[in-house]
Parts: sequence; structure tokens; C-alpha cells
Amino acid sequence: MAMKNLFADRMKNIPRSFVREILKVTEDPEIISFAGGLPHPESFPVEEIEAATTKVLKEEGDKILQYSTTEGYRPLRDYIAKRYATNGLKVDSADVLITNGSQQCLDLVGKVFINKNDRIAVERPTYLAAIQAFSLYEPRFKSVPLNEEGVDPEVLDDLIRKFDVKFFYAITSFQNPTGITYSRKIRKEIADILRDSQIMFVEDNPYGEIRFMGENLPPVKSYLPESILFGSFSKIVSPGMRLGWIVAPPEVMDKLVIVKQASDLHSNYFTQRVVYQYFKDNNVDEHIEKIRKRYRRQRDLMVDCIEDYFPTDVEITRPEGGMFLWVTLPKNMSSLELFEHALKEKVAFVPGEAFYVDDPQKNTLRLNFSNSEEEKIKEGIKRLGKTIEKLITCD
Amino acid sequence: MAMKNLFADRMKNIPRSFVREILKVTEDPEIISFAGGLPHPESFPVEEIEAATTKVLKEEGDKILQYSTTEGYRPLRDYIAKRYATNGLKVDSADVLITNGSQQCLDLVGKVFINKNDRIAVERPTYLAAIQAFSLYEPRFKSVPLNEEGVDPEVLDDLIRKFDVKFFYAITSFQNPTGITYSRKIRKEIADILRDSQIMFVEDNPYGEIRFMGENLPPVKSYLPESILFGSFSKIVSPGMRLGWIVAPPEVMDKLVIVKQASDLHSNYFTQRVVYQYFKDNNVDEHIEKIRKRYRRQRDLMVDCIEDYFPTDVEITRPEGGMFLWVTLPKNMSSLELFEHALKEKVAFVPGEAFYVDDPQKNTLRLNFSNSEEEKIKEGIKRLGKTIEKLITCD
Repeated sequence: MAMKNLFADRMKNIPRSFVREILKVTEDPEIISFAGGLPHPESFPVEEIEAATTKVLKEEGDKILQYSTTEGYRPLRDYIAKRYATNGLKVDSADVLITNGSQQCLDLVGKVFINKNDRIAVERPTYLAAIQAFSLYEPRFKSVPLNEEGVDPEVLDDLIRKFDVKFFYAITSFQNPTGITYSRKIRKEIADILRDSQIMFVEDNPYGEIRFMGENLPPVKSYLPESILFGSFSKIVSPGMRLGWIVAPPEVMDKLVIVKQASDLHSNYFTQRVVYQYFKDNNVDEHIEKIRKRYRRQRDLMVDCIEDYFPTDVEITRPEGGMFLWVTLPKNMSSLELFEHALKEKVAFVPGEAFYVDDPQKNTLRLNFSNSEEEKIKEGIKRLGKTIEKLITCD
Repeated sequence: MAMKNLFADRMKNIPRSFVREILKVTEDPEIISFAGGLPHPESFPVEEIEAATTKVLKEEGDKILQYSTTEGYRPLRDYIAKRYATNGLKVDSADVLITNGSQQCLDLVGKVFINKNDRIAVERPTYLAAIQAFSLYEPRFKSVPLNEEGVDPEVLDDLIRKFDVKFFYAITSFQNPTGITYSRKIRKEIADILRDSQIMFVEDNPYGEIRFMGENLPPVKSYLPESILFGSFSKIVSPGMRLGWIVAPPEVMDKLVIVKQASDLHSNYFTQRVVYQYFKDNNVDEHIEKIRKRYRRQRDLMVDCIEDYFPTDVEITRPEGGMFLWVTLPKNMSSLELFEHALKEKVAFVPGEAFYVDDPQKNTLRLNFSNSEEEKIKEGIKRLGKTIEKLITCD
């Protein structure tokens, strides 16, 4: 069987992910890895999940193991809507669809909106797995550079005047990979630009709850109710459970439900019930506060160590939340080359190239601060600093 | 925002599923419904799942709630491979990918193989949700009529000589919707036809373990190792957990892993660990034997009641396993019309039209026998028989 000719054209757009290769290399337990995007294991409420599971299985075991509705467990959707309400965003729970983590939101939105060769706009740099998910629908990517306060509204405006763009995808808080958060002013201006356009705004917000400093900001959807917003339980309860959600206007939700049903009928119902029970029986805000404190501590330590051990012409972002910070090396340095050298010193990160849809800025890299213990952060950043110094000296 | 123009062309191929509408109508608890495809709630090992969950959470809580690999939990993949081995099919566990139920297998295969306007072959009639999943990749469907022993190999051979077909999708045991099982002879002949072709064989087998009479038969993959085979835990453990798998040759698996990762990173890891623990600590064959006995009893009762209450010119299939049987009404009768009348008598089924990709045979319908209690089967079939009689008399 000559299988190569059998595959669909879309498969040509996806080179074997070099991040997958990198993450494989870093599986060696001797390596201090800032490469992955994993929450700290202590952020998982293990005992509470156990209690919740036992309760729902004892009370309604034969129901929670059965097939369920595509949209998701209604009380869980209500809970999500109510939680938005306390943050000032009015959401009807009918407009919430439960998904397999926010990764599936990307796939479903890609499926509903993207025709081959459609243009879509993303941040520069943007989330690697969004590039992968959207690429399978064969769009042409346009990028909008990220600054300290988000994208430049004028650049976005120019872009959508020049090109027929289907949607703009952005992670507005503690962006992956940069850790950047859109200011309130920029949020409003983006909403103003897109309000009367033909362009859908797709806002991804997996880290929103993990703000450990600075003022809480409303999602762009607060200013632009017709937009799409993603959410996730991965960073506050468990990523292994693969539960997230999409909030979308009814006309879009109709289509999303159809593609969700065709994709996998519905998300794991057993786990939806467990997570809902967990929320019902526990104070999740106390739990989130613990995560925030831990990540703040780890982020501060990483920033301090970078200041101590990295050359002064290395620039970094200083995130107010989330799990990542972004490093810009001296101009002519290649983070891919640094990666090779760092690996020999048993420390790893993700080279920035992975996060660009066009003309990658090769002297950038992403560091994760959520997953590593404090001694590892200290030791890893120290080693990385030395490796950078060495490379500079050799050049 | 003029959202209608925003949606991708593929969304035009999907009319609002009339089965969704039908299932909504039948949610009324007063209605005896043979419409859904639900396992019997007693087929769920609730207490054993509770024990397994408690165990894995106590022993490795922080691991099982974390992100995991796209391919799935290795010991679970090993378990699947071993179970095939005891049934005579040699499978390497590296060739097994864990999915969100076999519905996701359909989506992943559609994504990997189908270009717009590619021809794919399916049975006539075929599984409704497969039509939905594949349709989103905009293929042209060709159908191969089902007979008592499976499709006619000559007809399949003619079709693939005439048309450039990408793959042939078939449910070879206790087919949905018909309950038909391919004979050993037909299985071999299909393998012979496809062996030297450029056509992939995609074999769906969600009900294979639920054989309650007749001789166990090897999957077509036994004769055609380069083909793709789907499996599912939905019918033997829990559909709400959404866990299934694909077995595929390495060249295809490479592509499947890429699209699975882009779709949702990986399947629910927590649940994979729970299900594996359940298998480890229990005798699943004893459990499956109970399900088989129950479904056999319910199937026999439904067949007996049909013989008692339906006019003699109504024909039915007599499945040796699975969850459905297929009814062919007298020639000029419309099952859609029957559905309207039956609903007034508070009994429901799925009209056959839903299962055809071309020129539906309007006098057919699907009955589910796995989900209803025995008194409901008796009463429901009695009512349905009366409604058919009435419609015949009125014509």
C-alpha cells in the first residue's frame, strides 16, 4: 500500500513538531527543564478530587458513566457563567460549551471558521499549539507584533484594512509564550476596532485566574460581547482531566456544537461531574490563592536569578501572572544554538522560533517557572547564565 | 457582525442533525425510546470504578492529574494489544493511540486522509455519526449495499475499479444501524480485494466484545495487517468516560498522533489511569459475560415481540451481538411517517433515512435493544406493532 499518496494535503503543513522532539530530549530526569508548560503538581487538589469522585459515583454512578449531552453538564456550565458574573462579564450558560481543554477550542474554532487559504491574524509570537491546530485547516497566517501592553491597535487596524482576515486570535493575559498582558486601554481599543468589522475576535484565557500581582482586568469580551472566549480548568484543577470551555454568541455556538458532536460526541462526563462536585464542596478561591502565591514566589526567584546570572544585555518580560517569561538574547545570538550548549549543561527551554508563523526572531526563548522547585530554578538559571556568557565570549 | 459569511464552507454540508432533534423529542420520560444507542446502566461497573479511582488517586494523585503523552498511557495500550493477542490478532502497543471514544477515531481519520472532493466508500446504510464526522472534510460518498453476510465483495471490487476511492469504512460486527455481521468468507474476500489496492480499509468495531451468540470472528485486520482498526471501552466499561483507540500501521500512526495532539493534546489521563486500574484489579471477562447475557435476553425478547406484534411482511435482522436491530417495513411505507404516529403512542425509534449517504430506503428503521427494561421492550414493541397495522389499514 503506497500510503504517502493517501494522506490529505493538510498533513503537508505540519512538520514533525520540533517542540515534541525537544520535550522528548528533556525527559531525562537529570535535566532541569524550563521547556514544558506544566503546572506545579502541588496545584492539584488530589484529596478533594478523591472525595468528589467517591461522592458522585456513590450517588449517581450509573448516570455519570453514561453518555451525555454534547454541550456539557448544565450545572458546570452554570457555574462557569456565574464565575464570570462575579468578575463583571455577563455570560448566559447556554453560550458555554464544555471542551477537552482549551486545545480543543482551537481545533473547533479552526473547523468552524477556516477555509483553505483564508487569512487569520495571530500575535507575534503566538502559542505554538494554536499554530498547529489552525494549520490543519490550511489558513494563511498574518501576525501582529506584541509589545509590552499587547498588540499595537494601529498595526492591527492597518492589517485588517489591507487584508480580508477571518479572525484575530490572541491570549490577552499572561500570554504564552511571552507572559505579556494587554492593558485595559489596549483591550478597549481592540474592541473598538473590531466592533464594526467582519472579523471575529478569538480570546484565549487559560491563565486568567493565575494573576499573582497587578490589577485584575476584564476580558476583551466585556467590551465586545459578540466575540469568542476560551477558558480552562487545567491551571486551577487538573490538566490531565482535559476540561475547558468556549463562550460564543448563539449563532457561532450552533456551529460549534455540531463540530463538537462530530469530533467526539461530548467531553468526558464522569470528569465533568467530578470537577463540578469539587467546586460545589470546596472553596476554589482559597485553592487558587495558594497556586498564585507559589507561582509568584517562583516567578520572583527566576527573575532575581536572571538578574544575578544573565549578562545585562539580555532582556526579559516580567509577567504579572501565568506560567512563562520571555527572554531576548543579544541581537546576533541564536537560541537554537544556545539550546544545544545548554543541553550539555543539563538545562532546557523552548527556543523562540517555535512561536512564530513568519520570520522568527532567533534570539528569543521561553522559560517556564510554574513547574520547577526553587532549588532547580536557582541552579538552572545559573547554568543557563553561564552558557550564555560562554557563547558571547566565543563569538 | 455578519457572521454567516464568516463560517467555513464545510459547515454547509451539515444540516442540523435530525437525529439530534429526534433524540430531544424522546427525552420525555413517558416515551419508550428505542431511538438512542445507550448501553444499559447495569453494564457500568460502578463500585469497581470507585475502588480503582480511589486507588490511583491515593497512590499517584499528583501524576494522574498532570498533562500526559499524546499517544496515551502505555500500560493501557499494552493491555489493549495483549487483549487482541488472546483473540489471535498481533498488535504492537506502539501502534495503539488512545482517543476520546471511537467517535474521535472517525474525526482523526477524516482529518488525516480526506481532501475536499475525495471519494470515500461506506456501507449502505452506515453509521450516522460517521457520516457527520467525515462530511466535515467534504468528501464525496460512495456506498456499498449491505447484505446478510456483509457487503458484496464483487460490488466493492467494481466500485474501486470505477472510482478513485481513498478508504472504505465498515463496521464489520453487529453493524450500526443494521446489526449485520460480516461472515468469515466475506472478511477474507474484502482483505483479498483491498490488499494490493491503494485503498485504506477502516474497520470500526465498537461492539465486537458484545457477541452473545454465534462464532467469534477475527477482524478484517487479521487478514489485512496494513488496515486501520477502531476500538472502544464505551460498551464494556463506560461511554461517559469517552475512551477508545485506533490501531494503525506506523506510517499512519505518525500522522494520527500529530492530528490528535493538535485536536486536544491527549485523552483524559485521569480516566485512562482509572480504567487501566479497573482492568488490573477485576476480571473484565466476567463483567462482559453479564452484559452479553442481558443483551441476549433483551434482543431475544424484542425479536419475539416483533414476531408476535408486527405484521408478517415486516422484515428484521437477527443480530448475534451489539445493540441494534434493523426493521424493513412493507415497501411503500415511510418510517418518518410511522415515527410521527408512533410518537403519539409514546414510542420512538430512529427512521432509517438518517443512515444513508444517497437515496435513502424510506421504509427502514433502527431499534435499540440494549437500553430498555424488559417490560418496556414488550410494551413498546406492542404499541409500535399496532401503529404499523393502523398505517397499513389506512393506506
